[in-house]
Amino acid sequence: MRGVGPHASVARMIGAEIETLIRLLARLPGLGPRSARRAALYLINHRETAMAPLAEALAAAAAALKTCSVCGNVDVTDPCPICSDPGRDPATICVVEQLADLWALERTRAFNGVYHVLGGTLSALDGVGPEDLRVPALVNRARRPEVREVILALNATVDGQTTAHYLTDRLAECDVRISRLAHGVPVGGELEYLDDGTLMAALKSRRSL
Amino acid sequence: MRGVGPHASVARMIGAEIETLIRLLARLPGLGPRSARRAALYLINHRETAMAPLAEALAAAAAALKTCSVCGNVDVTDPCPICSDPGRDPATICVVEQLADLWALERTRAFNGVYHVLGGTLSALDGVGPEDLRVPALVNRARRPEVREVILALNATVDGQTTAHYLTDRLAECDVRISRLAHGVPVGGELEYLDDGTLMAALKSRRSL
Repeated sequence: MRGVGPHASVARMIGAEIETLIRLLARLPGLGPRSARRAALYLINHRETAMAPLAEALAAAAAALKTCSVCGNVDVTDPCPICSDPGRDPATICVVEQLADLWALERTRAFNGVYHVLGGTLSALDGVGPEDLRVPALVNRARRPEVREVILALNATVDGQTTAHYLTDRLAECDVRISRLAHGVPVGGELEYLDDGTLMAALKSRRSL
Repeated sequence: MRGVGPHASVARMIGAEIETLIRLLARLPGLGPRSARRAALYLINHRETAMAPLAEALAAAAAALKTCSVCGNVDVTDPCPICSDPGRDPATICVVEQLADLWALERTRAFNGVYHVLGGTLSALDGVGPEDLRVPALVNRARRPEVREVILALNATVDGQTTAHYLTDRLAECDVRISRLAHGVPVGGELEYLDDGTLMAALKSRRSL
């Protein structure tokens, strides 16, 4: 049949610009090759209203964003808006593994102190030592007389807890209270689906009503 | 406890640049508000290696991409690489609803003709008439003596089939064979999501109308 049949040679299907775009979109967490293609199609079909604004937003963010030299937060100013906010209490430092955790805590609006973003956890397996994290900076901050408490808000994973233990040792020399987040049943969680470790922790630190 | 408790005022959590970025990312198909935040965090944490390249790729694509004046394909040249490829057979025009369908058909490598992207389907409900689609351009192309066949590769949806019937009427005046994709396309299915094998089978057993 005319016009139909396997190509003699593989035709160049789409332009290099589009291929690059799809490849970069596919690297985003939550987007696979297929959904990256869908996203690229959406952008191509909305060049004025979506593609150009996103390009500008990314370029603006890439140019403007700075890592806070005090706490490791990422924002457009250094020190970051949290560190330079006179309404925040510099006596309490909340140590988190990464920026995502800082954002999660800020969303709760339950914390009015300042942060310290470690940039990861210690990991013998991945060869991450204290010098790869912002540990010395944390110890320096904790030594300051105005600091009263360091909250270790690290993940309840093996690496997170190993890091918490290590930080507890390192911070022993500083005159600060060291605390960690409570373990327990997540709000809205069902006991039936909880792991044994969480249930045991919740039982141990039960509170009188 | 010092430093912990509800804020007196709502703190500005993240910079306007980041908020804009998240808002634009959340508009992409496949990304909700939560995954857009994750994607933004990934980009923020990889400013040099991911954010800047994506900004450049988007800007380059937004600047370079053109809609082909012949077939409606989107690529960096006008006419598009398919229309201007001497290896493609201009005697067979494959009519598709949208760019995504053209990409899907190109991935099968089973079609060596040229395309015509309608830009949608007729829809009484959404008020889309023939003048909103590239129908007149299609009729003009089909009138040319070198064109032998028009394949209506529209979705097997009500709107797609309504459009196919309408196009069959409009193309009756032209001296062309009119065909449609074989059944094999699942009823209610959309080309964009079909596997290559089904698409190839559907192409091969297309029938005259």
